[in-house]
Amino acid sequence: VKIRTPRAATYELFYWPSIQGRGELVRLALEEAAAPYADVARLTKKEGGGMAAMLALLKGKGLAKGQLRPFAPPFLRSGRYLVAQVANILQFLGPRLGLVPADEASRVEAHQLQLTVTDLFAEVHDTHHPVSTGLYYEDQKKEAKDNARNFLTERMPKFLGYFESVLVANANANKKSKGRHLVGARLSYVDLSLFQVIEGLRYAFPRALGRFEKTIPRLVELRDRVGDRPNLKAYLASDRRIAFNEDGIFRRYAELDVDA
Amino acid sequence: VKIRTPRAATYELFYWPSIQGRGELVRLALEEAAAPYADVARLTKKEGGGMAAMLALLKGKGLAKGQLRPFAPPFLRSGRYLVAQVANILQFLGPRLGLVPADEASRVEAHQLQLTVTDLFAEVHDTHHPVSTGLYYEDQKKEAKDNARNFLTERMPKFLGYFESVLVANANANKKSKGRHLVGARLSYVDLSLFQVIEGLRYAFPRALGRFEKTIPRLVELRDRVGDRPNLKAYLASDRRIAFNEDGIFRRYAELDVDA
Repeated sequence: VKIRTPRAATYELFYWPSIQGRGELVRLALEEAAAPYADVARLTKKEGGGMAAMLALLKGKGLAKGQLRPFAPPFLRSGRYLVAQVANILQFLGPRLGLVPADEASRVEAHQLQLTVTDLFAEVHDTHHPVSTGLYYEDQKKEAKDNARNFLTERMPKFLGYFESVLVANANANKKSKGRHLVGARLSYVDLSLFQVIEGLRYAFPRALGRFEKTIPRLVELRDRVGDRPNLKAYLASDRRIAFNEDGIFRRYAELDVDA
Repeated sequence: VKIRTPRAATYELFYWPSIQGRGELVRLALEEAAAPYADVARLTKKEGGGMAAMLALLKGKGLAKGQLRPFAPPFLRSGRYLVAQVANILQFLGPRLGLVPADEASRVEAHQLQLTVTDLFAEVHDTHHPVSTGLYYEDQKKEAKDNARNFLTERMPKFLGYFESVLVANANANKKSKGRHLVGARLSYVDLSLFQVIEGLRYAFPRALGRFEKTIPRLVELRDRVGDRPNLKAYLASDRRIAFNEDGIFRRYAELDVDA
């Protein structure tokens, strides 16, 4: 699998080129499905991409008829569609990539769980930027410590405990899922997002996650199984997977990492 | 229109009984459509409601087969469905209440805008609770001031400027909308949510909104038109509309309200 140029791509993803961030949840779905896509802002201008292409659309330049200017990255272009908001993009891609069950009830459920992931991401972001996204981390370090302590001792356990309980409930509701999936009997985009949640939390808060992981064995197993899927394994080992770093959502600052 | 008891209600809304909060975006859609609904936690136990009914479902008690335990209120029960997350609920209700266009492109667009409202609500909440939801406002007042200043001078103008530009764009894309609606040619749940955004911001930040409103004339007009719709006008004048207060998302703390 290579990053395709827009010419050959069915899907064009527009997101910041140097971080995993929220866009990674979309990348994982496209990679798992081996979908032909371009990660536009990571391409050169010659290849038909670059940051300028993304920023132009954010300013409303180059929109096709009926396309809505996005409020913020990530957004996805496919045919006449220009779709923004991660959960909305995944809802759009799910049926097209075979990453969500066909019935309405399961789709509502998958989307509901995905929106809970959105909330979790927002709270993780707030651990290092509680006062303002416009300020440096160094200028809100004290507040970040307070926020992170609350997140790691109250919110993170609540979120992960919830997703763990969803795996148990789905094991009972869908015997065929064998407890391996959050929704329905097969892999969905929600499973992929929970892989990223665990990976990100492990990166940012190794101390907090350490012991806590014993309380979420099914999520840890899910993370392992997803990471072992052939397409994802190849992706994670490739240079298309951007390394975690301190510009993304999940940041490793030792001073924020306390016991859960 | 009266609050119906669950027996007669097609829709049961579960949300905190003493605040508008996020649940208000669902109430507005149900009220505009004159849908038969019960605001369950506001009913007495005798009427078949109360907080206990909501808390039981949050603990997973009383779920029907296939229903997913919600992570947090609000959630909506209708037939075999139990749907959580405001934007997900509105996406579910939209077609059923005639509050979203029929084509997929418009629905993706409406949902995308609704998720941007979700983001705005989260940022408004952070203005008074930047450090932790578990702490009192009084214990994070200093940080709240910093957060609110950033919100009112940077983020709020960006959000409202964006929605104003969507009204302009839709006026061109859908002549029939006459610039009156954010999506398509008719009223949608997104219009109702923007009414609440303006109402809430006016309540919480009268100083900041004051002058700034001149820069968003179409949103102000939209707010006026929505508030004048017969069903909503009756609702807003009724005791079903909970007054704004300092337990909700939009809180009036004079010390946070600075010029935009």
